[in-house]
Amino acid sequence: MNKKAVCIMSGGMDSTLSAYMMQEEGYEIVAVHFNYNQRTQQKELSCFEAVCEKLNVKEKYVLDMSFFKDLGASALTDSTIDVPTTGVEDGVPVTYVPFRNGIFLSMAAAIAEKESASVISIGVVEEDSSGYPDCRESYILSMQNAINLGTKDETNIEITMPLVRLKKSQIVQKSLELSVPLELTWSCYKNEEKACGVCDSCRLRLNGFKLAGVIDPISYE
Amino acid sequence: MNKKAVCIMSGGMDSTLSAYMMQEEGYEIVAVHFNYNQRTQQKELSCFEAVCEKLNVKEKYVLDMSFFKDLGASALTDSTIDVPTTGVEDGVPVTYVPFRNGIFLSMAAAIAEKESASVISIGVVEEDSSGYPDCRESYILSMQNAINLGTKDETNIEITMPLVRLKKSQIVQKSLELSVPLELTWSCYKNEEKACGVCDSCRLRLNGFKLAGVIDPISYE
Repeated sequence: MNKKAVCIMSGGMDSTLSAYMMQEEGYEIVAVHFNYNQRTQQKELSCFEAVCEKLNVKEKYVLDMSFFKDLGASALTDSTIDVPTTGVEDGVPVTYVPFRNGIFLSMAAAIAEKESASVISIGVVEEDSSGYPDCRESYILSMQNAINLGTKDETNIEITMPLVRLKKSQIVQKSLELSVPLELTWSCYKNEEKACGVCDSCRLRLNGFKLAGVIDPISYE
Repeated sequence: MNKKAVCIMSGGMDSTLSAYMMQEEGYEIVAVHFNYNQRTQQKELSCFEAVCEKLNVKEKYVLDMSFFKDLGASALTDSTIDVPTTGVEDGVPVTYVPFRNGIFLSMAAAIAEKESASVISIGVVEEDSSGYPDCRESYILSMQNAINLGTKDETNIEITMPLVRLKKSQIVQKSLELSVPLELTWSCYKNEEKACGVCDSCRLRLNGFKLAGVIDPISYE
């Protein structure tokens, strides 16, 4: 019996819910986390670890992608570029990290092929998101196609993105239904102790809680 | 004027010729090399550096992908799996590193997007090769499609694979035409001082020289 899912988990709300949904569907989880010298690396890693413990994950990969620091070009990995705090705008924001999900999915594919996992889960959200091109459903489907062409013929990997068409408020609701420990998740781009409440990621999260009529359990400045 | 090409360069014959062909076409080369704890890492890196100097490359990325060591599952990265030396066989050999070119191309795409390069070159060879799934033209074209969907709308990247349909003997001939310093390239999977002559990679290289009627300038055991 092979029902393993490689779950890309940042420690944020979306990928945590995605992993809970995979477990709900009966998959054994292979959890994958990336440290990429993002501003909140330590906090995200500790949230990832805490969520894995809750999920009773047996197999974990924590991967060092400090490559992104050398690459720079994003407010998340280059401390000289400020994280915007004035509201979500149209277009690709400066927090975009070049082809980040492409690199994450490629590494997840290598792990999935080695582990004989049939599924990779990723918590991308297309609407109600920061507008990153590597979070679009069309891109993810195209990447799935490339992965299956570029691995062994007997390797067949589905990339599942259970949240891609959900609104943030639906993500909050679904998380409550599945008893996802939202207090252990982190979304803020800037801070590690108390969330800033004003970066794009905090704004999207807070708006989701507000529309769901629920109080966010984490602390804000 | 933007005519930059991100060239993935292993230090081997194929990717070196590919980079020479890009320079011949007038591209400014951004050279990218990966250390992935492969058996001949030091030798390949020194060949890469020597070739870059010959090519007068101004911009280089040497990236640490020790991830592959943790992943294992390949004779190139796991010292407990022997490199086969009895001849190239059908099927995917144990030297296959799971989705290696997928990861390399994703990282090259991130670099290309940051550097505003319009092309990525990769020295894959489909026929006359070890039979790796991530060296097939169909895969590379599909990956190109995924990369363009997963990056900014204004980012348009072509992946060029000038050798994909060549025989090894044609690669040797073309290298001589372009004065590629073949003595600075390395192909052996096993050794770093004198090439073994019997691993798949040495066999393919030696056969190419033989059919081209040329003596390979590197030393063999």
